[in-house]
Amino acid sequence: MTLQSIRYECGELSILDQLLLPHETAYERIGCVEDGWKAIRSMKVRGAPAIAIVGCLSLAVELHKREFPDTPSLSSFIKAQLTHLTTARPTAVNMGKSAAILIKFVDSMVEQNVSHEEIKSRVIKKIERMLPDDISDNMKLSEHGAKHIMGRIGQDKVTILTHCNTGSLATAGYGTALVVRSLHAAQHLREVYCTETRPYNQGSRLTAYELMHDHVPSTLIADSMVGLVMRTRGISAVVVGADRVTRNGDTANKIGTYQIAVLAQHHGIPFYVAAPITCHDGGRLDGESIVIEERPPHELTCVAGVQLAPKDMNCWNPAFDVTPNELITGGIITEHGVFTPHQLNDFHDK
Amino acid sequence: MTLQSIRYECGELSILDQLLLPHETAYERIGCVEDGWKAIRSMKVRGAPAIAIVGCLSLAVELHKREFPDTPSLSSFIKAQLTHLTTARPTAVNMGKSAAILIKFVDSMVEQNVSHEEIKSRVIKKIERMLPDDISDNMKLSEHGAKHIMGRIGQDKVTILTHCNTGSLATAGYGTALVVRSLHAAQHLREVYCTETRPYNQGSRLTAYELMHDHVPSTLIADSMVGLVMRTRGISAVVVGADRVTRNGDTANKIGTYQIAVLAQHHGIPFYVAAPITCHDGGRLDGESIVIEERPPHELTCVAGVQLAPKDMNCWNPAFDVTPNELITGGIITEHGVFTPHQLNDFHDK
Repeated sequence: MTLQSIRYECGELSILDQLLLPHETAYERIGCVEDGWKAIRSMKVRGAPAIAIVGCLSLAVELHKREFPDTPSLSSFIKAQLTHLTTARPTAVNMGKSAAILIKFVDSMVEQNVSHEEIKSRVIKKIERMLPDDISDNMKLSEHGAKHIMGRIGQDKVTILTHCNTGSLATAGYGTALVVRSLHAAQHLREVYCTETRPYNQGSRLTAYELMHDHVPSTLIADSMVGLVMRTRGISAVVVGADRVTRNGDTANKIGTYQIAVLAQHHGIPFYVAAPITCHDGGRLDGESIVIEERPPHELTCVAGVQLAPKDMNCWNPAFDVTPNELITGGIITEHGVFTPHQLNDFHDK
Repeated sequence: MTLQSIRYECGELSILDQLLLPHETAYERIGCVEDGWKAIRSMKVRGAPAIAIVGCLSLAVELHKREFPDTPSLSSFIKAQLTHLTTARPTAVNMGKSAAILIKFVDSMVEQNVSHEEIKSRVIKKIERMLPDDISDNMKLSEHGAKHIMGRIGQDKVTILTHCNTGSLATAGYGTALVVRSLHAAQHLREVYCTETRPYNQGSRLTAYELMHDHVPSTLIADSMVGLVMRTRGISAVVVGADRVTRNGDTANKIGTYQIAVLAQHHGIPFYVAAPITCHDGGRLDGESIVIEERPPHELTCVAGVQLAPKDMNCWNPAFDVTPNELITGGIITEHGVFTPHQLNDFHDK
């Protein structure tokens, strides 16, 4: 079965510690909001959807255990915890969005004089739905993507290339760009190539681990081998995830995505972005205004604690890049279907 | 001054141990042919030109010390040692070429009844000329390259992107693709970007070290950042080295070179190959027939002794790729000038 990055049942939460992967598969119990905050901060859990789910579930765990004398104490506790959770990784938009939704939900119940026991119960239920909802959205997205790719390629078996990690570890348990799961389940996948994804190696550490866990036929390559793989290994399509998709379809994603899109165009290979609607930024017209985060040099020169380059070497270490919409030649895969950048704009207009 | 990878004077030879770079700058004395063989085998010295020079110089060192009773004993000693040296790294063509030249040289002197003392003295002199000759060829090549780039770009300052290591460490002391040295010396270099060059990290370990040593303004990037650098950082030209240039200009070089050439074409950036004539394979019509060496998976999944990917992950680890001549839009830089692939063909016809 698919790798479970988050396990939750009746107020008991545990997460797969991603810092130990791929060497050790160990789950860590999250007993309170502070545990959740620390797990997010330390990157034991990562990926925007997973961060929001673990954060909110850590609140549900604590609500299960605690009793509150009245509505004001419950309401202020929930709001304070959610606000705290958003500080663990400030750049993770999803946690902020989920916190805002839950706070609004509490406020509306307070206004309607719902009892504090009932508010608590409904908040817990709403949070608990996030996990199956995310899995369900990811499955829909993957199926839309798989169907579109099969239609486009017109062959019984396809070979996919992917970059970074957007599988079950980044989400509640099914994955987005891992449209390959659906292809594999339908016996249409010949093989998937995954890049190691320097400098953080999410491909070699996490994607490789997930693919092996799920027995998906797969091959790891260095980022420098993408061109040769495309030229000689019969890649049918590229599928990557997204940090943010703007209104015109420009897509910010892990560094290296842009050049893979250029290489795909050169080799006539369709390039897909798999991104649930929560990753879309319908208020931003295009990718021009996206500021590219630059990370410290040592994250590039130091691998697993070993210094590779000279210590004082000048480095440029951008964390992501923006792929212009015209290079997204396959489409943007969402839980609502596969869109061309132009169709996506119309979707946001609705 | 330029980094000296090989130091030689009056029968005393020492080499910079490249296995210790960039952490330690230590020279190792090469006192005999066996020392030379071991240094090549263990990759303390690497790069086709450097291997041949160190191998032959280790023979010169031993000839300086030894006395021979007659011509047959001298001749058979020289031939046996040279044959042995070619076994240290069988793929390094240059050592084989140099051995063949020296053996022919000895044979012709034997035929002419040259005295064995004189043969020994002439062989030593011929070997000792290899070091300054290689430096001189590299300097000519670099100057041709720098001049061509400045003419093509038409600006006072240029920014160069390079891949892998073809600097002074790979040669006798000046470097080939490091045309950047000449640009820097002439104050025409704004900056050079070097890729880390996975999976062996020659860029982060060796090129970065050389550039820092020579105080060349430089920035290290991951291989996945080439596209973004070209899009946003004003790269004037790409200059890479070559393992082998075929008659039509198709070029085999370190894995990742091909995709950099595709990215350069997409961004309208001239792409140059710097390759002394010793790297040219005028007998091979094109790159189609070049077999791509595949290296073991652990060299990709293991970095500096640390396992990154799951141990049993399936990997593809090609050591180099072939860049088709139409992507070499700048030219092929040699010690005889800069050629288009078409002109190169005519050069070989002469």
